[in-house]
Amino acid sequence: MTTNMLNPDAGAHILQWADLLARHSEPPWDARGELTATYLTHAHLATAGDLAQWMRDSGFDSVTTDAVGNVVGVYRAARPDAPVLMTGSHYDTVRNAGKYDGRLGILVPIACVAALARAGRRLSFDIELVAFAEEEGQRFRATFLGSGALTGDFDPQWLDQQDAHGLTMRDAMRAAGLPGEMAAIGALRRDPSRYLGFVEVHIEQGPVLVERAVPLGVVTSINAGARYVCEAGGRAEHAGTTPMGMRRDALLAAAEISLFVEQRASLAPGLVGTVGQMEVPGGSINVVPGACRFTLDLRAPTNAQRDALVTDVLAGAREIAARRQISLECNESMRVAAAPSDPAWQARWERAVAAIGQPVFRLNSGAGHDAMKLHTIMPQAMLFVRGGNRGISHNPLEIISAEDATLAVQAFTALLDDLDVNG
Amino acid sequence: MTTNMLNPDAGAHILQWADLLARHSEPPWDARGELTATYLTHAHLATAGDLAQWMRDSGFDSVTTDAVGNVVGVYRAARPDAPVLMTGSHYDTVRNAGKYDGRLGILVPIACVAALARAGRRLSFDIELVAFAEEEGQRFRATFLGSGALTGDFDPQWLDQQDAHGLTMRDAMRAAGLPGEMAAIGALRRDPSRYLGFVEVHIEQGPVLVERAVPLGVVTSINAGARYVCEAGGRAEHAGTTPMGMRRDALLAAAEISLFVEQRASLAPGLVGTVGQMEVPGGSINVVPGACRFTLDLRAPTNAQRDALVTDVLAGAREIAARRQISLECNESMRVAAAPSDPAWQARWERAVAAIGQPVFRLNSGAGHDAMKLHTIMPQAMLFVRGGNRGISHNPLEIISAEDATLAVQAFTALLDDLDVNG
Repeated sequence: MTTNMLNPDAGAHILQWADLLARHSEPPWDARGELTATYLTHAHLATAGDLAQWMRDSGFDSVTTDAVGNVVGVYRAARPDAPVLMTGSHYDTVRNAGKYDGRLGILVPIACVAALARAGRRLSFDIELVAFAEEEGQRFRATFLGSGALTGDFDPQWLDQQDAHGLTMRDAMRAAGLPGEMAAIGALRRDPSRYLGFVEVHIEQGPVLVERAVPLGVVTSINAGARYVCEAGGRAEHAGTTPMGMRRDALLAAAEISLFVEQRASLAPGLVGTVGQMEVPGGSINVVPGACRFTLDLRAPTNAQRDALVTDVLAGAREIAARRQISLECNESMRVAAAPSDPAWQARWERAVAAIGQPVFRLNSGAGHDAMKLHTIMPQAMLFVRGGNRGISHNPLEIISAEDATLAVQAFTALLDDLDVNG
Repeated sequence: MTTNMLNPDAGAHILQWADLLARHSEPPWDARGELTATYLTHAHLATAGDLAQWMRDSGFDSVTTDAVGNVVGVYRAARPDAPVLMTGSHYDTVRNAGKYDGRLGILVPIACVAALARAGRRLSFDIELVAFAEEEGQRFRATFLGSGALTGDFDPQWLDQQDAHGLTMRDAMRAAGLPGEMAAIGALRRDPSRYLGFVEVHIEQGPVLVERAVPLGVVTSINAGARYVCEAGGRAEHAGTTPMGMRRDALLAAAEISLFVEQRASLAPGLVGTVGQMEVPGGSINVVPGACRFTLDLRAPTNAQRDALVTDVLAGAREIAARRQISLECNESMRVAAAPSDPAWQARWERAVAAIGQPVFRLNSGAGHDAMKLHTIMPQAMLFVRGGNRGISHNPLEIISAEDATLAVQAFTALLDDLDVNG
């Protein structure tokens, strides 16, 4: 396994790359030293530019940007027409994000391919690295947009969605030099028969590995999830003169629903439910809220548990709204099935982790990942890397150690070696 | 009482004036046919301009704009150095407001003075009509700014407050042609010894008069109130991977506090408590809220009841926050004492209402009014006018009838006559 030995400080390089990418941030966040790079913003395009450059510098044979902004690098096999291993993760971020979420799964394969290219080594399969343009669903109500385009799940109606400033996705695409039309986006769909499978490296984004003192984790399944954007409608009235018993306060309905989500999701381990955003549009300190917008994010280890959670939460929300004479509309903005890892690919990760002398620890993923989308057309399995700070993520406190990043590069390289030798 | 007979359709004129003022609104609201005119915006300055013009056209002897933007019209007494009756109300609005809140109390006296001037009649006292520039506390965290300047309650720190766009009040004043300095503002303080008292006409903004089928109401007292701007601080984490029991969700604390406010304010009649605004700054659908900003508006008929409500709400909020390991800061942005009407002035309104043949109905005010500020330096009493649509206010559905507006003009004129004859 000489390749592993070629990268003793690969992890330190990956952390430097992540620091460089984190300099690209949307105002006003960058003024506060924060990282926000949502779909097709200036910060996002600058990130794509760096990634493309680093792929070229590292020896990828072709590097292109596709019709949704994915940066696709291919490192050719020894023979033409070889099957393809796809890997990658996303480079967009949530607001005020960590530096490694998504990006680690792009930078680790770049480091691995750089080592292969330096050694002049070609494998029995193409490596197709996709830096997905969008996974987080921040700027538009569309998630897994980058990986969804590859699996035929890009919803044409997304093009007409508007961001908070009223700009449609189509116009945002065109402003970024992308065609912004379905013909080009539809053509991105991959033919699964050409692919061996999909692997994704990702920071755990949770406390399990750090609490168990294990640097790497082999993912057994990705939780099912569903998201909703809700609007409660009541009656805006004077806060001083409207008796408590005569009010139809939209915010109080949303508040009660938020607490119900917490209560219901706490009933079984593995379930999570979150109201991440809430606002009273045009609200005033002295006006009873006539409307309240809020979001729901519901996840569970299996589709059946997710469905039960969704059913109970929506029924509870309707009951709360009805009791308070509040109208309620909840529109589903995302629904992803649980994605159990393919046994053969999970076993390859387990062998790779063992090959570099690390304990084989298995866990499921509470977070959604691009692998969930690829799961719908090809076998997949993920490798998690331990995060520090209790595994905090979606937060500037997200960290990984250079040592753990090096282990990720070594494990990925071991998986490539295994696949090259054993198929 | 010939003056009353001179204004058979004064109410219709007042409604037309209110319609004209409602055309001045800040974008984007005006595009939706809504009315928003917050302190010193273009819409607000245009409103002031119309009011000044109408005061001049109606026969006021002097019309000036003072250092905080109040438009002050004086109709001189028959003799120089006569005592002064002050009246007026505010011309700023909440967001998406009704057309009569505040403005009715400016337009009714204009109509009365117009009738006096047409008749060439001078009274035994000056009438000083003040169109207060700011009462609602919308653009800056300052309320009763216009009337507060007249009572010496203008807080110099207000000048450094920033609006949502980061513009300070001082700069907003200077952009509007005002001096923006305390020397000029401090000089606005009135000498109470020159004044007979303060009367204010206002739409009720509540359901009492319309439910009792009474057009006018004599106010016995204005409720005490306190407002707070709060920020809850938790820990922003990944919504998929952070177990429910390990979260410090700032939004859930705010939601629980909102429901506690509702519960506590419902314990006694006359109390009201409102969370009018709530937001998760920089929040995302898939991130546990690390912070939540919200407002509190608490009111009660007496100072003692208000203080007990405030104490209980803040203690309950602290307990909720502590239990959830959430930091909580609540800053008081307003505190107004209850303002019982001066018995002699309340009696003048009662005689005036009776003089025009209407039933004398007494009620207290759940809303705060500029009269609360003037109360601190001179006797005051208010007259309420019935609102339609269940008395809805702070809402475009706020309405009054032309007939009721005419009755308000007649009652105000009767009060002037009474004061002229009986002192």
